Amino acid sequence: MSERFVRQLEELHVELITMGSLCEKAISLSAKAIQGEGGMTLIGKIFETEKEIDAQEREIENLCMKLLLHEHPVAGDLRSISAALKMISDMERIGDQAADIADLSKHIEDKAVTGDIINIRKMAEDTVRMVTESIDAFVKGDLELCRKVIDDDDKVDDAFNDIKEKLAEVLNNGKPDASIGLDILMAAKYFERIGDHAVNIAEWVEYSITGNHRSGSSHTDNYFVEE
Amino acid sequence: MSERFVRQLEELHVELITMGSLCEKAISLSAKAIQGEGGMTLIGKIFETEKEIDAQEREIENLCMKLLLHEHPVAGDLRSISAALKMISDMERIGDQAADIADLSKHIEDKAVTGDIINIRKMAEDTVRMVTESIDAFVKGDLELCRKVIDDDDKVDDAFNDIKEKLAEVLNNGKPDASIGLDILMAAKYFERIGDHAVNIAEWVEYSITGNHRSGSSHTDNYFVEE
Repeated sequence: MSERFVRQLEELHVELITMGSLCEKAISLSAKAIQGEGGMTLIGKIFETEKEIDAQEREIENLCMKLLLHEHPVAGDLRSISAALKMISDMERIGDQAADIADLSKHIEDKAVTGDIINIRKMAEDTVRMVTESIDAFVKGDLELCRKVIDDDDKVDDAFNDIKEKLAEVLNNGKPDASIGLDILMAAKYFERIGDHAVNIAEWVEYSITGNHRSGSSHTDNYFVEE
Repeated sequence: MSERFVRQLEELHVELITMGSLCEKAISLSAKAIQGEGGMTLIGKIFETEKEIDAQEREIENLCMKLLLHEHPVAGDLRSISAALKMISDMERIGDQAADIADLSKHIEDKAVTGDIINIRKMAEDTVRMVTESIDAFVKGDLELCRKVIDDDDKVDDAFNDIKEKLAEVLNNGKPDASIGLDILMAAKYFERIGDHAVNIAEWVEYSITGNHRSGSSHTDNYFVEE
């Protein structure tokens, strides 16, 4: 393995950690926004962070393609790079979803609803942790941590179902206004999707370590067979 | 261009059309399911179609990677293949969303709500047409058709907002039960997301024809620069 290749692989790790941190920031800020903190300044910050995430995706995509095309990596290194390409696409979508939550926050005037009646903060914290841990798992090659993230998704799914039930209950009692209730449901759904993306990331990390992906296909291994 | 390469590019077109048809089928069936037709048999068919879409994605992914790695395409051909790789990822998500709608259909017992009070069918028809036209645009290299699909997304977004408003109104009047209302909102949201994926597909087709992507990055063109 050339010195340049080793250096570029290290650079890839650093760039992925940076992209992961941006995602964590976007999720945390969007949880605050939906609970009525920060007003339009905070919402603006979330949109900025989303743009930084998009730029970071392009940066990493370029780095990976250069590595693939010029260094001809094999086995574990090839899997790492293929996994990174898939992971950034999930991280980019996490950024989109944080921006979608920020958008919804503009319309929720009765902020007390999200703070007191429906507690969305726990769900947001769980997804932030899942994203952090999935990137950590990649950098450290930690299979156990991958599996923890994959298992933790049940908690987020349960939280979404609880919020949905609770919302149906309060809406049937005529409080809050249904349009706010519908917005809160959408926000909870975005957090649930963020959890799904963290699981996708963890599954790609698992693939980069073991060579097996849970979807059952061996993915990129097929592409690079010699003719 | 080798004869084999021409043949494989034609095969790629055929495979993409097949994947597009599977998506149209999945969307149409899920629109029926959410309106109370077909019961569990129909829901089962949607899940089967989703699996076929996933298998088709892997098939096309393999074909594209073989083309990239063994034929070393340049310029327009390279862009076509890169665009195809991005398009199938959007089509795969369309399949997921159709399956999500099928899942929701199981819980909506008061089917009359979706048929009479909230008409989701028009929204579904619009998204089916958008998907068909975006694949058509790829095969024919039709830039005008791409732009039509991109413009049509406004209709789907408006339809989602109308459904949301209408739902808030009927929920505030205490009919239907809020939990059904929340499920209908989720289904409408999935159709709206399908429209977004059709737009993504059309934008990649536009890129494959013009070399410019609306996101502002020149994407894959960067990767293949000579060192």
